[in-house]
Amino acid sequence: MALAHKRLNANCIAWRFSDKQKIAFSGQGAVPVLVDHGQSIHDSWRIAKHLEENYPSQSLFGNASASLVQFVNAWADRALVPAIAQIVILDVFNGLHEQDKAYFRASREKMLGASLEAVVEDKPTKITKLKRVLAPLRQALGEQAYLGGNAANYADYCVFGMFMWARCVSPSELLEKEDPIYTWRERLLDAFDGMARAAFTVSENQRLKVTYP
Amino acid sequence: MALAHKRLNANCIAWRFSDKQKIAFSGQGAVPVLVDHGQSIHDSWRIAKHLEENYPSQSLFGNASASLVQFVNAWADRALVPAIAQIVILDVFNGLHEQDKAYFRASREKMLGASLEAVVEDKPTKITKLKRVLAPLRQALGEQAYLGGNAANYADYCVFGMFMWARCVSPSELLEKEDPIYTWRERLLDAFDGMARAAFTVSENQRLKVTYP
Repeated sequence: MALAHKRLNANCIAWRFSDKQKIAFSGQGAVPVLVDHGQSIHDSWRIAKHLEENYPSQSLFGNASASLVQFVNAWADRALVPAIAQIVILDVFNGLHEQDKAYFRASREKMLGASLEAVVEDKPTKITKLKRVLAPLRQALGEQAYLGGNAANYADYCVFGMFMWARCVSPSELLEKEDPIYTWRERLLDAFDGMARAAFTVSENQRLKVTYP
Repeated sequence: MALAHKRLNANCIAWRFSDKQKIAFSGQGAVPVLVDHGQSIHDSWRIAKHLEENYPSQSLFGNASASLVQFVNAWADRALVPAIAQIVILDVFNGLHEQDKAYFRASREKMLGASLEAVVEDKPTKITKLKRVLAPLRQALGEQAYLGGNAANYADYCVFGMFMWARCVSPSELLEKEDPIYTWRERLLDAFDGMARAAFTVSENQRLKVTYP
């Protein structure tokens, strides 16, 4: 979404969790990794800042301070992801290539302190918990269309990305249609000629494929 | 802090929890209530928006969208306050005037689903939980001095207000000195000639008194 917002083209390279060798050049083992004119940048927040500094037109942060957008980004990482994971983590596992399953189960069960099956138990309660975690977003979207105000920017994309993750890996519906967050998500699925909506999902038994406008 | 930021003077009127009659003119029963040229505005977020719309100089939202600041405000209300309450709620009760105690205990215990004494049990665990809730703020303040960027604005004040609440009602220290949030809080305590730092606290056995610059 950040690249599309900046009207930048990028080649997307498919990657598997356990395929650490392929991104070893970045000096660490997690995605996303962006390679821009030979420079490698990892971590989505650092990539967003890199894009904003190097491609200043079509601002990603609107006129907000970087720290304010970073707050939303960190909230998405620290509060939203764990709440969504409690609903979809077993679906992630089930959609993985066989070569990734052992690595994923071991690393995630260690991180979560429970088996993947135990984590997703009692889904209705987990969805209620997620709804509570989302309260600040719901309130903010009650008065304006986007966190960015009248137009979406990185404050929206960093949160939307977590919903895209859930959408691509799991058939679980996280939001009720009456929720302002549902409407906001629909608008972002439609953005850039429906780029996000066109992304293939595991539940369609298709490989994730992202095209840039 | 919002009034001081706008360089506006206001008369502060002392109020007690159970003294609903005194603010009945506002059409509801909670503080803060601001009366501005005969118009009454309640709820801190609505007051901030009123100030921003009616006194545009010294912008409270910087150049950020209102929804982005509202997100932080809602996070402070929905995530931060409950985490702080689990540490200080019994101190609030102990500092109350006798006429407020029964009302406060009954309404808060109903809200929290437990006795005030049970809520604050095992304080070290509650402080660890608070530290986790504060992770997004900590990350955002790691790179810039304020959520507003180089200068504080309402995104900072709405969070700082919750720390001021804790400071005024409880002797519990919520933050470690090494925490970037501690340093940020110190800077805000020093703002406007130390206005917030000068506020009297219950633990000094003094009544809360706020003076405006």
